[in-house]
Amino acid sequence: MTVTTTDFSAWSHASLQRVEETLRRVLPAPEIAPQRLHQAMRYAVLEGGKRVRPLLAFSAGELAHADPARVEIAAAAVEMIHAYSLVHDDLPCMDDDVLRRGKPTCHVEYDEPTALLVGDALQSLAFQLLGEYRLADDMKTQLEMVKLLATATGSRGMAGGQAIDLASIGKGLTVPELEFMHIHKTGALIRASVLLGARCGNGLAEKEFGQLDQFAKLIGLAFQVVDDVLDADSSTATLGKTAGKDARQGKPTYVSAIGVSRARELAGELRRDALDALAGFGGRALRLRQLADFIVLRKF
Amino acid sequence: MTVTTTDFSAWSHASLQRVEETLRRVLPAPEIAPQRLHQAMRYAVLEGGKRVRPLLAFSAGELAHADPARVEIAAAAVEMIHAYSLVHDDLPCMDDDVLRRGKPTCHVEYDEPTALLVGDALQSLAFQLLGEYRLADDMKTQLEMVKLLATATGSRGMAGGQAIDLASIGKGLTVPELEFMHIHKTGALIRASVLLGARCGNGLAEKEFGQLDQFAKLIGLAFQVVDDVLDADSSTATLGKTAGKDARQGKPTYVSAIGVSRARELAGELRRDALDALAGFGGRALRLRQLADFIVLRKF
Repeated sequence: MTVTTTDFSAWSHASLQRVEETLRRVLPAPEIAPQRLHQAMRYAVLEGGKRVRPLLAFSAGELAHADPARVEIAAAAVEMIHAYSLVHDDLPCMDDDVLRRGKPTCHVEYDEPTALLVGDALQSLAFQLLGEYRLADDMKTQLEMVKLLATATGSRGMAGGQAIDLASIGKGLTVPELEFMHIHKTGALIRASVLLGARCGNGLAEKEFGQLDQFAKLIGLAFQVVDDVLDADSSTATLGKTAGKDARQGKPTYVSAIGVSRARELAGELRRDALDALAGFGGRALRLRQLADFIVLRKF
Repeated sequence: MTVTTTDFSAWSHASLQRVEETLRRVLPAPEIAPQRLHQAMRYAVLEGGKRVRPLLAFSAGELAHADPARVEIAAAAVEMIHAYSLVHDDLPCMDDDVLRRGKPTCHVEYDEPTALLVGDALQSLAFQLLGEYRLADDMKTQLEMVKLLATATGSRGMAGGQAIDLASIGKGLTVPELEFMHIHKTGALIRASVLLGARCGNGLAEKEFGQLDQFAKLIGLAFQVVDDVLDADSSTATLGKTAGKDARQGKPTYVSAIGVSRARELAGELRRDALDALAGFGGRALRLRQLADFIVLRKF
C-alpha cells in the first residue's frame, strides 16, 4: 500500500489505516492470558487519537525511502509509548482525568491497578517491537534506535518532562522554562518519531538527520503551543478530553504565560521556522510540510 | 576485578560491589535536571536489595566466559526492571506498602506521582542500557537481548504475572495456578537475568541455553516458594519489608495452598531439580550451584 498522490488527506487516511492495522496486529490478542490486561491495553491504544507521532514517522520514512513495513513497526512503537504516557498521566495520582480520546480513561473503564500495569506493559511492548522486527539494514543502527527511543522516553525525555510539569503546578513559568518543559514532555517523543521513521531507510545523509531533528524540535513546540490554545479555547466534546483543565489545575501554559493571541502568533512562527529547517530537502519533504501544517493549523 | 576463588562469599561480595558501582554510574546523577526525579530513582535502586538477579547474571556470564564489563550492564538493566516493579507494586493502588529494603517506600519518601515516574523512567533506562553499551559480539544477538528483556518485563512476563496476582486476591489457587502466576511474576525476569548474563559471552552451545533456562525456571519457582515461607515465618525487621502481608491481603501463596512444611519440602525439591538441570556443565556451573543454594537456603 503506497499512496503516491500529493493529496494529504488521501495519504493520511491510508497511513492511519496502516497504523491501526499494525497496532491491532502487534498488541497481544484479547483472548491471550492475562486477558483483562490485554483487553485493557487494546482499549488504551486502539480506536482513538490523532496518531500524530506515527504520521510523523511515516513522513520521515518516505523522505528516507524506507520500507513502509519497517516504518509501521517504528510508528507502532512510538504510539505505544505515547499511549502508555496518557494512561499514566490520567491516573488519580497524576491528572486524575476521566475522559481521553472521547472515551472513559483506562482506570475508569477498568481499574487503577490495571491501568498502572497497562502503561508499564505498553512501554515494554514498544521495546519488544524494536528488538523483534528488523527495522534497519544494519543491526548497529537498530540498536541506536533502541537507545534513541529509550532516551526520549525516560527521565531525560518524556518522563522527565512530566516530572518538571508536576513541579511547576501553581508556579508561573517563563517562556524559556515552558520550552524546557515541553522539549522534554512532548518534544522528545516527537523528535524520536521523526528520527526513528527516517532511520528505517537509507536515503538520508548524516547531515540531513540534523535538519530533520531541528524540524522535529520546532514542530514539537508548535504542537504544544497549539495544544495549549485549544485547551483554553475549545469544548470538551471537540477535544475528546477534558477542556480548560490546565487553567483549573494551575498548570503553566503558553496561554497563561503570553496570552491566547500571542500564543497563536508563536505557533505560526514556530511553523515557519520548522518549514525553514526542511529547506534543504526541497520537494522531497512535501509530506512533512503538509503534516506540519496539519499539526499547527488544526482547529485554529 | 576477577575473583577466581571458589569461595562463594568472597565472590558474591566482589560481585555485589561491582553491581553497586555500575548502578551508581549508569543512574543519572542527582544534580542533573529533573533533580528530584533522579534523586528518587537513585533512592529506589541504590543501597538495598539482595541483588539476586544481578548475581544470577554474573554467574551465568562466568559460565559463558563473558567479559564482566558487559555482564555488569546486563545485570544493571535487570536490576532497574526489578526496582521499577517494586516501586510500582508498593504504590497505594497496588500493595500500598510503606517499607521496602528496610527503608520507606519511594512514594512515602517522595510522593506518589514521583514514584510512578520513577518506575516508568527506570524501565526506560534498562532498555537504554541495552541499546547504548556493547554487550555481545554481534549486534543481532544484542537485539535478541532487547527482545528477551522486553518480553520478560511485559504483559506476557512480569507485568502479566502481576495482573494475574491482582486477579487472584481472595481466591484460593491450585498449585499449578500458583506456578503459572509465579512463572510470570518473578520467574520471567529471573530467567532473563540468567540468559542475558550468558548471552554476553560466547562460551555456550545453543543447547546449553536450554539447560540454563530450565535451571532458571526452577530456581525462580524455588525463590518464590522460599519468599512465601519467609513472609509467613519472619519478622518485618528481618525481611526489611512488611511481613505476613500476603495472608492479611488474602493473597494465595504456597504456604496457604500447601502449608509451611510442605512448602519447605517443595523448595528443596525444586532446588534439587534445578541443580540437576546444570548436570551437563559439570564443574563449570559451580557459581550457579552456589547461588541456587544461597537462594533456597537463605534464612530457613
